[in-house]
Amino acid sequence: MSIRIGIFGYGNLGRGVESAIRQNEDMTLAAVFTRRAPETLKIKTEGVPVLHADEVEKMTSEIDVMILCGGSATDLPVQTPELARHFNVIDSFDTHARIPEHFAAVDAAAKESGKVGIISVGWDPGMFSLNRLYGGAILPDGEDYTFWGRGVSQGHSDAIRRIEGVRNAKQYTIPVDSALEAVRRGDAPALTTREKHTRECFVVAEEGADLCRIEREIKEMPNYFADYDTTVHFITEEELARDHSGIPHGGFVIRSGKTGFDLENSHVIEYSLKLDSNPEFTASVIVAYARAAYRMAAEGQTGCKTVLDVPPAYICRESADELRRKLL
Amino acid sequence: MSIRIGIFGYGNLGRGVESAIRQNEDMTLAAVFTRRAPETLKIKTEGVPVLHADEVEKMTSEIDVMILCGGSATDLPVQTPELARHFNVIDSFDTHARIPEHFAAVDAAAKESGKVGIISVGWDPGMFSLNRLYGGAILPDGEDYTFWGRGVSQGHSDAIRRIEGVRNAKQYTIPVDSALEAVRRGDAPALTTREKHTRECFVVAEEGADLCRIEREIKEMPNYFADYDTTVHFITEEELARDHSGIPHGGFVIRSGKTGFDLENSHVIEYSLKLDSNPEFTASVIVAYARAAYRMAAEGQTGCKTVLDVPPAYICRESADELRRKLL
Repeated sequence: MSIRIGIFGYGNLGRGVESAIRQNEDMTLAAVFTRRAPETLKIKTEGVPVLHADEVEKMTSEIDVMILCGGSATDLPVQTPELARHFNVIDSFDTHARIPEHFAAVDAAAKESGKVGIISVGWDPGMFSLNRLYGGAILPDGEDYTFWGRGVSQGHSDAIRRIEGVRNAKQYTIPVDSALEAVRRGDAPALTTREKHTRECFVVAEEGADLCRIEREIKEMPNYFADYDTTVHFITEEELARDHSGIPHGGFVIRSGKTGFDLENSHVIEYSLKLDSNPEFTASVIVAYARAAYRMAAEGQTGCKTVLDVPPAYICRESADELRRKLL
Repeated sequence: MSIRIGIFGYGNLGRGVESAIRQNEDMTLAAVFTRRAPETLKIKTEGVPVLHADEVEKMTSEIDVMILCGGSATDLPVQTPELARHFNVIDSFDTHARIPEHFAAVDAAAKESGKVGIISVGWDPGMFSLNRLYGGAILPDGEDYTFWGRGVSQGHSDAIRRIEGVRNAKQYTIPVDSALEAVRRGDAPALTTREKHTRECFVVAEEGADLCRIEREIKEMPNYFADYDTTVHFITEEELARDHSGIPHGGFVIRSGKTGFDLENSHVIEYSLKLDSNPEFTASVIVAYARAAYRMAAEGQTGCKTVLDVPPAYICRESADELRRKLL
């Protein structure tokens, strides 16, 4: 009676899902799907088939929930609705501005097939969204703040790597302590982009490259760096590998608000994450919500859901009785 | 199309609910019920009837959700099931050990009447329970920790007041910083009661009372103080009124856990509250969940629920579309 999980796409997130499944006794990995040649892919779980993405429809009766581990830019907008025609699906689609349109596409496909899809699962969107919801509903007269970091931003690291003369790079997003403290005190400050986060870059330059130009190009890059205080460190490839090979991340969602007949009392709700591995934590959230997708489908629900719709108890292995007794 | 709320019991929590209703435009206060003589009770909202508790059944068609604001020791175990025969109800029942039996009583009554009851709403039980659930489901290989304070414990303050020679008292529960820090670092320490919290007491003694005896009786009181490092300060009634008239509280729920094929990565999830007014914050949580009770009842659901069962979006005024667009 194990929940049979399929992994569609086997990068950092796919490996995180594979590892998270081992931590959940009520789940088994049924198959991994890849667009590469399946025989070139070595997974960590013995006896589990690795199949080409084109063969996915042969496996409809072997998989209870398909977890999509592709990227939000081009993979998920196509794959999630397509797979929702055959499977209960779950993804971590994280292009905030395009969530409504992705939701509509997955909802239409899943309603037609009678399946459940849960999209945008992870920590932001995901757990951070949930905390923005709870904070805002409880303290309607208030402000909320999201800070990210200290952590590696893949998008910003990639942007630096595209600069001429850069061989490799890693970028950290760092919340500004004084801003965090002001928010925690309940000051409800109005903060500019520059006041909330700084950016720190570790760059490996090619031999003989013009470091001044590289640094200037980074700091002046619109959208990515121009609105931030950015520091640039040039280091060697060895130093990068030694000190910056992890993928840590984290952040803070803080709601400060007032209550009372004269709004005389202040309250601060803070949720924070400190993560050694961003993809493994994201995968752990997804795997918990795969359990919810399975249960909602078993109840006969269909269509697209998000973490905002899922009753919390559905993500737990324990029965409702047990949860009330142990956690409430 | 406002949600019409009744308040049953008008102490600190009842007043908090009255004030929270003003912060939620989709709600109106329909009536306040009291066991005192109604004419002796002065509420803050004009034009709203104050009725005797015995008259509650006359108001079944005027109230969408009844919020019970009595105590967990003797009021709620009787009142919540009784009122669930006629109303959708919500309470903040907080005797953790007796929640299963309270749940069963409210569930039976609400299923018979076709109403919805949501019990044990507030911050602990309530938001803290939710965070224990989310943390445990996401990081199954881990430990969770709940710390309370710095805040006033009503039960402990009352216990001190019962000692001979004590005129008045206020007790603060304080989390031990070094324990909090160890948990935040992911050390997953095993902590004794004494290592997690200290207790600080501000006591007004009667003239001529034996202060040494009072201090000893406090510190040796079983269950309440004997297992803690307790400090006792004797102060005047004026000082108590000046410095200790508030009802602040708060605390921390922290989950630390590991992921990875060799459990090589650590993660820390922390949720914390810093509250100027414990009853007003509790009331704010209850009022948000009253909205969920109203919606679940409108959908035809019946029986007893807790925060663990309620889809998060149900506690918000905004539509599901709007929430996805703005919060996800």
